[in-house]
Amino acid sequence: MGSITREDEKSTTKQDVITFGAGPSKVPRVVLERIQKGFSNCADSGISVIEVGHRTKEFVDIMKSCEARIRRLLSVPSNYRVLFLQGGAQAQFDAIPMNLMGNQGVNQADYLVTGAWSLKALKEAKKYGTIREVCPQVPGFSCIPDQSAMQYDPCAAYFYYCDNETMNGVEFDWIPGLREGQVPIVCDMCSNLLTRPIDVSRYGVIFAGSQKTMGCAGLTLVIIREDLVGGELAITPSILNYRMQVAAGSILNTPPTFTAFAVNEALRWVEEEGGIEEMQKRTQEKCDAIYSFIDRSEDFYHCHVPKAYRSRVNIVLRLPSEDLEKLWLAEARRHGLIGLEGHRTVGGVRISLYNGITMDDVKRLLDFMETFMNAHR
Amino acid sequence: MGSITREDEKSTTKQDVITFGAGPSKVPRVVLERIQKGFSNCADSGISVIEVGHRTKEFVDIMKSCEARIRRLLSVPSNYRVLFLQGGAQAQFDAIPMNLMGNQGVNQADYLVTGAWSLKALKEAKKYGTIREVCPQVPGFSCIPDQSAMQYDPCAAYFYYCDNETMNGVEFDWIPGLREGQVPIVCDMCSNLLTRPIDVSRYGVIFAGSQKTMGCAGLTLVIIREDLVGGELAITPSILNYRMQVAAGSILNTPPTFTAFAVNEALRWVEEEGGIEEMQKRTQEKCDAIYSFIDRSEDFYHCHVPKAYRSRVNIVLRLPSEDLEKLWLAEARRHGLIGLEGHRTVGGVRISLYNGITMDDVKRLLDFMETFMNAHR
Repeated sequence: MGSITREDEKSTTKQDVITFGAGPSKVPRVVLERIQKGFSNCADSGISVIEVGHRTKEFVDIMKSCEARIRRLLSVPSNYRVLFLQGGAQAQFDAIPMNLMGNQGVNQADYLVTGAWSLKALKEAKKYGTIREVCPQVPGFSCIPDQSAMQYDPCAAYFYYCDNETMNGVEFDWIPGLREGQVPIVCDMCSNLLTRPIDVSRYGVIFAGSQKTMGCAGLTLVIIREDLVGGELAITPSILNYRMQVAAGSILNTPPTFTAFAVNEALRWVEEEGGIEEMQKRTQEKCDAIYSFIDRSEDFYHCHVPKAYRSRVNIVLRLPSEDLEKLWLAEARRHGLIGLEGHRTVGGVRISLYNGITMDDVKRLLDFMETFMNAHR
Repeated sequence: MGSITREDEKSTTKQDVITFGAGPSKVPRVVLERIQKGFSNCADSGISVIEVGHRTKEFVDIMKSCEARIRRLLSVPSNYRVLFLQGGAQAQFDAIPMNLMGNQGVNQADYLVTGAWSLKALKEAKKYGTIREVCPQVPGFSCIPDQSAMQYDPCAAYFYYCDNETMNGVEFDWIPGLREGQVPIVCDMCSNLLTRPIDVSRYGVIFAGSQKTMGCAGLTLVIIREDLVGGELAITPSILNYRMQVAAGSILNTPPTFTAFAVNEALRWVEEEGGIEEMQKRTQEKCDAIYSFIDRSEDFYHCHVPKAYRSRVNIVLRLPSEDLEKLWLAEARRHGLIGLEGHRTVGGVRISLYNGITMDDVKRLLDFMETFMNAHR
């Protein structure tokens, strides 16, 4: 794979194109190279990874390797099952109520809505039972409500929240939900999984799509405490049935085999680079550099999220006008910096800092931001 | 991509490894090369196809291209919608009743069970309504019941069948279901789509997983008549909701982006090679060569399916003993011929002849079959 370059219109230097997209997202160069190298001869089988049957030893070994790496990276306790399922994380918005709503013999669950994704999850769950919100929604989802505002139901089938809201740029630095009792905590970690250590034992279910921090779109990681498996509603499609997927080792039907191959390489890279602690350190360094630059820009760049709730991986910001935002995005693109548009329902600018983004990428972005600010303030 | 070779233990020549697997399956060499070449710089964006955002012009163009190719290849009428969905074809076993069961105001559908896959579909559909079988199941699914045995309900929400049973090796050469009236015909064409012309206008819904005849696992093609969109049950997950997926152009959430990229290349190849008529011609030539060899083998190789119902794309056969079958599969593997095991629930040998398999591949397989027979009969 040759170096990919783009002519910089303002100079004669050529620069790599870097995507700061919110998912699919930037993949480390070495991971891309290994995927491309391994593509044509999967595990020395003599055939391409996309030709390998999903029930062959070659493919089952890839799935087992993905699971083993997740178990090591996140110190997953032995009483938890690790699944890789299809349908995107949104499929879990249904799978979770379908599998857990019968827990405790009730048909009611607690949701904490802190942004667009937890709101979607709540709407989806209402198809399958009674959903109660543990506190009022903050207008504009600009921060996370105070712990004291939460009222949990100790009899709920489960409690659901989203650890990091990708569109709204807010992230928890604490775990909501009841500390004691029988209400399992279900957590959407799509955009911040593998960016800091987590205590898996505090959760009933953790899930995350693979397209943000695991290298390639198409699979969703589900980590579930084994006692929560088996209580599915009668209307649950088999592909969303945790009990059947656990029994099938996530290969109930044909998975997107290439995705599993790529995810395995992405997880291998995280291990080789030093694991979760190293990713946490890098993530903090990257987001600190950007937030401190924004805060020093005297409101040319503005992030409306209060410091305590700012996401380390999705930085949402505005410029003084929508016209300037448009110009900024176009100029950034000309500098080979792409994927920076705010979510289509939110607008503005969004900088996503998953594990593939390096400090050098951040410095290049900051250089551009500074040059643009000086030219347009 | 270099040529992939495997040492032939019985001679000093090196041979390519060929998979005759039932899906994922062999992909034409030129398609593999294009995928690998395009991998690192998607549509000249400067980033890898797995880094490209699913709402970028680059990716949306890939999805549109896949749809346009399917429309051209299958002459899809303008009142049909073309979707590419997640979850594998098995997700459609649920999506179909969830979206169509309310059609005609009834809660009942007709199923024709001719093998393991239509049986799975029937079991899944029972979660959502009353399912009636249009005729008794044939023991062992060794043939397709006669047309005269079918009793259709003219008031059913829909009628479901599987055009080719991959495990059982039986295929329709006619279209079951009522010729007139309001009962839409729903057809699973997972394993024989793109191997012969079809009259789409005879169907309400056609679906097929991408891992057999479309190059790469992870997406399921759904072709649906537009008047059948919009009647979903209240419990339908959004990702399985045809109305929402039509409105979103199949990008309701993040699809497996690499799969779409690869499917587009596989469909491009079918167009370049001459389209469906050419694929039909090749398929017939390939299966005729194998079936006639089997029938000339004086029962060393035995296919129990009567000629009229034999699948053109999945040939199931047995050898005189299970020990010989084991030896045959091991020897075939040593000759670089793999993916030939019968489905794990059926046993024996299965030869899958999707569009990636060439007549040269078939000749190599037949040479091996003949040599083995002469040594062991």
